Amino acid sequence: MPGGMYGHESVTKLPVPDSYPQFMSRGRGAHVWDVDGNEYIDLMCSYGPVVLGHQHPKVEAAVRAQEAKGDCQNGPSARMVELAEALVGRVRHADWAMFAKNGCDATTLALMIVRAATGHRKSLAARGSYHGAAPWCTPELVGTTPEDRANLIYFTYNDLESAQAAAAEAGDDFAGVIVTPFRHDAPLDQELVDSSFARGLRALCDASGAALILDDVRCGFRLHLGGSWEPIDVDPDISAWSKAIANGYAISAVLGNDRFRTAATEVFSTGSFWFSAVSMAAALATLEAVAEERAVETMQARGQALRAKLDEQAMQWGIGIRQTGPAQMPFLTFDGDVDLTMANAFAAQAIRRGVFLHPRHNWFVSAAMTEEDVSRALEATNEAFGAVRRLQDVE
Amino acid sequence: MPGGMYGHESVTKLPVPDSYPQFMSRGRGAHVWDVDGNEYIDLMCSYGPVVLGHQHPKVEAAVRAQEAKGDCQNGPSARMVELAEALVGRVRHADWAMFAKNGCDATTLALMIVRAATGHRKSLAARGSYHGAAPWCTPELVGTTPEDRANLIYFTYNDLESAQAAAAEAGDDFAGVIVTPFRHDAPLDQELVDSSFARGLRALCDASGAALILDDVRCGFRLHLGGSWEPIDVDPDISAWSKAIANGYAISAVLGNDRFRTAATEVFSTGSFWFSAVSMAAALATLEAVAEERAVETMQARGQALRAKLDEQAMQWGIGIRQTGPAQMPFLTFDGDVDLTMANAFAAQAIRRGVFLHPRHNWFVSAAMTEEDVSRALEATNEAFGAVRRLQDVE
Repeated sequence: MPGGMYGHESVTKLPVPDSYPQFMSRGRGAHVWDVDGNEYIDLMCSYGPVVLGHQHPKVEAAVRAQEAKGDCQNGPSARMVELAEALVGRVRHADWAMFAKNGCDATTLALMIVRAATGHRKSLAARGSYHGAAPWCTPELVGTTPEDRANLIYFTYNDLESAQAAAAEAGDDFAGVIVTPFRHDAPLDQELVDSSFARGLRALCDASGAALILDDVRCGFRLHLGGSWEPIDVDPDISAWSKAIANGYAISAVLGNDRFRTAATEVFSTGSFWFSAVSMAAALATLEAVAEERAVETMQARGQALRAKLDEQAMQWGIGIRQTGPAQMPFLTFDGDVDLTMANAFAAQAIRRGVFLHPRHNWFVSAAMTEEDVSRALEATNEAFGAVRRLQDVE
Repeated sequence: MPGGMYGHESVTKLPVPDSYPQFMSRGRGAHVWDVDGNEYIDLMCSYGPVVLGHQHPKVEAAVRAQEAKGDCQNGPSARMVELAEALVGRVRHADWAMFAKNGCDATTLALMIVRAATGHRKSLAARGSYHGAAPWCTPELVGTTPEDRANLIYFTYNDLESAQAAAAEAGDDFAGVIVTPFRHDAPLDQELVDSSFARGLRALCDASGAALILDDVRCGFRLHLGGSWEPIDVDPDISAWSKAIANGYAISAVLGNDRFRTAATEVFSTGSFWFSAVSMAAALATLEAVAEERAVETMQARGQALRAKLDEQAMQWGIGIRQTGPAQMPFLTFDGDVDLTMANAFAAQAIRRGVFLHPRHNWFVSAAMTEEDVSRALEATNEAFGAVRRLQDVE
């Protein structure tokens, strides 16, 4: 592999590569093991996809049953219709569904549909928001060209005026806005959405016939059983999904309303594995289990318990921290930690003590996490805070 | 689903939608069943991915064993290293490997690497060649913008002068050439590569420091156990792979030589499921089985037997046909069939008689096809030719 490893799972890019295992062996519930046999409490959940915990019995059973029949075939299986119906039934704004493999396939397809529907080229995106790693959206510009982003205009998350200015710049070539449910740009503090900002984006789109696209890839089904902006009562026209919807099996989805159905029919986007049945069977089982097991509530409860105690620990050690974002997707940063020295030390100590978390990327809680798992994780974080304290004392 | 179904597996776009089953149920070997229980001899192989036949025991066993441990985790499994080593050992030009999900991820990543390495923007592609369905390459322009293709310059497949002219147009901004192993642009007759054209592209790249990218997504491991241009002794710098390498499990790969290693390290491209272990385990088992079972030779033999007899049948019915491309990826067109009336009638009759083939897209033979399967398929094609004959007689 070039450079040892690439992409978001490369530990070569972590400031503490020696502390992190590069290769994983297996997982069960909220526990994961690396190839050297070390066990960790999992606070990354494979960077989001694992929502019910590793090896969830219901999901795995659905996978095995579908695999015995077929996966990638000359046509989709009936699972595709069942999954489309389940998602359209569950997500308020959705009248139709399409499926792909990567979250980035879904965000890219959403933009294509919006351009086809409006006949316009310009889309608005928040500066620094992650929508995938294709040339139009990868956070690193290496290997991209200015033309890849020629039709994007940037605004600042939660700053409606900046979005209005971007829309004005798009003028009569304004196709749509793509936005995440809250601001989760690594390595910054997370920032919940201001509901007046969300409503303002909706109004901005309505005023010009542009589309509002919610990039629910990272948050979908972790915050809410429908779309992540249903609790604040803002419906997008199109939403992009992936990660948690099949508990780790590779799938993404684009959901849309009837206004964009014709355009979705006219765009040609496809992939060899986009119709494969196994990940759709996994998604169906995942959606059912997330509802039945009240997984969102469990993740929230465990996340809140973790967060409360982390605050307490930091205070006891006399360390200033900030915990941001929803409890199910926690993130911890240190006051004054400009170069991430404290975050790195904290993460390195945590991973050595058996808690898999990340110094620069938001964490994820799964519904498989038990109260005992939270307690075990907290023992490790207490010692990790101690190490940060000693680091500060030395300085 | 918008329009009933989307993408290449949509039968709504086939001229004989009522004849084709939209939803498939299961497969075994070279046999597939639709959701109504109709059985077919499979001459599409899921549009390429199924190379050893459906439910190949060795591949399925590797999948089950890996699934019991883990698939999508906080880091890749050891399977990733094993697969990279297997591919680099098997494909002559390759010194390193990266993995993704879609063939289009691999072709897109290849272009990014080439741009990063050369610092140039312009890439050359054959007009009409299929390299995926992202905005820069989808065959339908709906939802794309001119900027998506601003850095592509087109040439004509097998026409070296046109490629030289395209390179001249790129001038000192010439990054690379992306090309398929042979011309397989639906619905045209297939066209094998002229080896002097391939050598000419290699020389064109060498003269300017540009990269030669072989898009082996559709052909890889169906024509040859290494890269598809090894038999004609032309090595690309980078190659893109997907479809057949994991017998239907979702994976793609980019292989490259050491000249492009640094650039591959610097580009940031990634995906939630790009490190998943199950499809890598499937690919390892597939590569082993393709070699052990001499799958390429079997596909070639079955394809040749099919082709010879199809020629005979057409002659006996007095119908002029052309069979083009490699025997493992057969395609049949009818003389003077400008509007595909004959191709459609032939395909409609074949599918009704239990042979799954396509009127407009090349077919695929799997190594699971037995001589008896070929005979059964030929009984159906003989009757299908008869129907085409009657159609001609009526006219």
